[in-house]
Amino acid sequence: MEQVKVFLDESDIPRQWYNILADMPTPMSPPLHPGTGQPVGPDDLAPVFPMNLIEQEVSSERWIDIPEEVLEKYLLWRPTPLYRARNFEKLLDAPVQIYYKHEGVSPPGSHKPNTAIAQAYYNKAFGIERLSTETGAGQWGSALSMACQMFGLECRVFMVRVSYDQKPYRRLMMMTWGANCVPSPSDLTAAGRKIMAENPDSPGSLGIAISEAIEDAVADEKARYSLGSVLNHVLLHQTIIGLEAQKQMEKIGVYPNVVMGCAGGGSNFAGVALPFVRDKIHGKELSVVAAEPSSCPTMTRGPFAYDFGDTAMTTPLLPMYTLGHDFVPAPIHAGGLRYHGMAPVVSHLVKEGIIEPRAFNQLETFTAGVNWARTEGFISAPETNHVIAAVVQEAERAKEEGKEKVILFNWSGHGLVDLAAYEAFLSGQLTNYALPEEEIRRALQTIEQFPKP
Amino acid sequence: MEQVKVFLDESDIPRQWYNILADMPTPMSPPLHPGTGQPVGPDDLAPVFPMNLIEQEVSSERWIDIPEEVLEKYLLWRPTPLYRARNFEKLLDAPVQIYYKHEGVSPPGSHKPNTAIAQAYYNKAFGIERLSTETGAGQWGSALSMACQMFGLECRVFMVRVSYDQKPYRRLMMMTWGANCVPSPSDLTAAGRKIMAENPDSPGSLGIAISEAIEDAVADEKARYSLGSVLNHVLLHQTIIGLEAQKQMEKIGVYPNVVMGCAGGGSNFAGVALPFVRDKIHGKELSVVAAEPSSCPTMTRGPFAYDFGDTAMTTPLLPMYTLGHDFVPAPIHAGGLRYHGMAPVVSHLVKEGIIEPRAFNQLETFTAGVNWARTEGFISAPETNHVIAAVVQEAERAKEEGKEKVILFNWSGHGLVDLAAYEAFLSGQLTNYALPEEEIRRALQTIEQFPKP
Repeated sequence: MEQVKVFLDESDIPRQWYNILADMPTPMSPPLHPGTGQPVGPDDLAPVFPMNLIEQEVSSERWIDIPEEVLEKYLLWRPTPLYRARNFEKLLDAPVQIYYKHEGVSPPGSHKPNTAIAQAYYNKAFGIERLSTETGAGQWGSALSMACQMFGLECRVFMVRVSYDQKPYRRLMMMTWGANCVPSPSDLTAAGRKIMAENPDSPGSLGIAISEAIEDAVADEKARYSLGSVLNHVLLHQTIIGLEAQKQMEKIGVYPNVVMGCAGGGSNFAGVALPFVRDKIHGKELSVVAAEPSSCPTMTRGPFAYDFGDTAMTTPLLPMYTLGHDFVPAPIHAGGLRYHGMAPVVSHLVKEGIIEPRAFNQLETFTAGVNWARTEGFISAPETNHVIAAVVQEAERAKEEGKEKVILFNWSGHGLVDLAAYEAFLSGQLTNYALPEEEIRRALQTIEQFPKP
Repeated sequence: MEQVKVFLDESDIPRQWYNILADMPTPMSPPLHPGTGQPVGPDDLAPVFPMNLIEQEVSSERWIDIPEEVLEKYLLWRPTPLYRARNFEKLLDAPVQIYYKHEGVSPPGSHKPNTAIAQAYYNKAFGIERLSTETGAGQWGSALSMACQMFGLECRVFMVRVSYDQKPYRRLMMMTWGANCVPSPSDLTAAGRKIMAENPDSPGSLGIAISEAIEDAVADEKARYSLGSVLNHVLLHQTIIGLEAQKQMEKIGVYPNVVMGCAGGGSNFAGVALPFVRDKIHGKELSVVAAEPSSCPTMTRGPFAYDFGDTAMTTPLLPMYTLGHDFVPAPIHAGGLRYHGMAPVVSHLVKEGIIEPRAFNQLETFTAGVNWARTEGFISAPETNHVIAAVVQEAERAKEEGKEKVILFNWSGHGLVDLAAYEAFLSGQLTNYALPEEEIRRALQTIEQFPKP
């Protein structure tokens, strides 16, 4: 009986998050105020985020203590098991060992609560009483709902109306955890009312939902806004994934040649990768691969430029790979990867050649995901299928090269409430989306006016 | 930071299942052939089950080796963590320690694969190529689909048509794992065609689906039928839950005063309870409590009698608590507990006073389940909410009595694809079902003709 899982005792859970800013080989460009073109300061962000999280956002301390109250909640599902995918290895028949962190064991079924719990805690500690956020498919909204409930905060989630109607299960999770989930556009905000006046049947968009959530938060001094990816402090909280993985691999005396994750805004990928990126910056030889959809090829086809983080142009200008904040990705089922930009930290490391992005099309990701489910058992989220496709590719390369490799990746979440996507795939209704160069060029015109990082 | 989870190393996974038949304080009545009134022999069952499982069904060996191939698949999610529900304890504010086995970490999200994997293995080893089964809400059908895929067996699941239409997610899991899930009644069997001829819009029932699955299996010599609860060998496979729990509690030096599970057919309850029942039979003092719905009060209000295991009267007569095979339970959301009978092993132990049954109504189970989700994070299956209600009751009693208690229960599965039930509850649309005595009496008339055990 060969070992499949490596557990970590609760007493060995990492007590600090890792902040890559302390180890960046070159300085990052700062976020800019869109009006002045000057770097934004903490005060600019104060109406949106609590000051303790703003301090984390700009901190360059290498290690940041995880508060006891956060650790206590983490223990509800962390440390997550490190798995060796022996059955999938057999299927691939390549000279690779495949390890994965199983982040699907959290109550909402993904890595998202790693930062939701932390953000709820810091907001509560700062005296905030209510959080407001947006959600697309609902992974983030459900994670924040649970976190707010656990720290006694109210939670309002603006959920893109078309998802609200078509994907009831995530909405129902939020309801069960006591959050107020409203379809966006809503009549709770000026932004929402304006859209509804123009188009009463608007299906909504993530851009609209972000505008509503920010407006809702800043209008109420006891409320703040919460974001589930992209920002430095969000990536920071996710590093617990990679830090645990390092301890677990050390336990079995293995170190990866390749570390992989799927990347939409970048947080689950950064979570597993950044502690290993640190090793790489300090001389360790390894590949770090971010898998994105070829229908939304931010890192593989977009420029590194200043752009808004949201479609509604309410955020500071962020230095990142972007397809332009006007870019509307094709309706692939991996909703969490349909984002025009990429976390500035991840973008910077791609630009520096430390992280390698690769794009995968929808059909190869679902092929990989179904093979995964039929060997390893677990049904992956459509987002997660992208990194599984990357693992398949890496295994094929290892076979061609006749080289043994140890692969580590983050299995970011399960797909039990995304099964309609599997049905579409298995019944032959899914397609790939070829993305014409003109479409990207057109979307990028909107950012030509901005400064260059 | 107080400990929340107790992991068991894979190398410490139990290598044998525990067979309570070896320790029964009094002999059990045998299953009877409904035609002859004589005990059924192995040959009677041979067209339905493979002989290696029939041998297990009638074995009185105390310990039965778990085959290496089964252990290998178990390791995909086993040993499951033993949790201490510290947050729920705080909410209850009673002198109790609450421990639970988290069976929701399996790929389909419940305890069902513990026996599905074993049954698929034994059928494969016997040369069977295809399994046929029925499913109501879909927990069992999805577990068997995964297990068959892993052992290279075909799988056909007859799913009650109303569930097939209303609960697509379980059906889609089966599809993803490669099974053939058909709505029942279907035109694949004479039984199905007959029903459809009488009523083309028949919503189906578990009784009809069982008839179709058995007919489908016995008509094909390379196929067999598979059952997800009730039978001795199914309960046997589930004892891995309790055996792991014993090792885990031993690790932290705790022994329970009360062991609890929810009971529909009896298998998850038996899984956690039987290894502790063994201790009780040998003199240990503890309570063993089975929680059932008050709308389907098999053990608390039914007689101990011979009855068919299915509505369609195709099984042997089983000695058990029953509400009569004609009994149609109210449409509560805990579909897995809507069963007129109870596993003979569990029934026998109830009759002997070793297991204490208690009934809980729908609203108190969902109240318990929502409080659970809001403290422990995990959203329970509606079935599982019954045992959580039992835990709440036990905690209240401990408080009244001023007695400290250690409670262990089986958290049989998550409710992530049962969220419509939570919505109905949270929006005030759920009700309790008062069950008039006449209704039970009427259903019981159908079994008056049978021998008495």
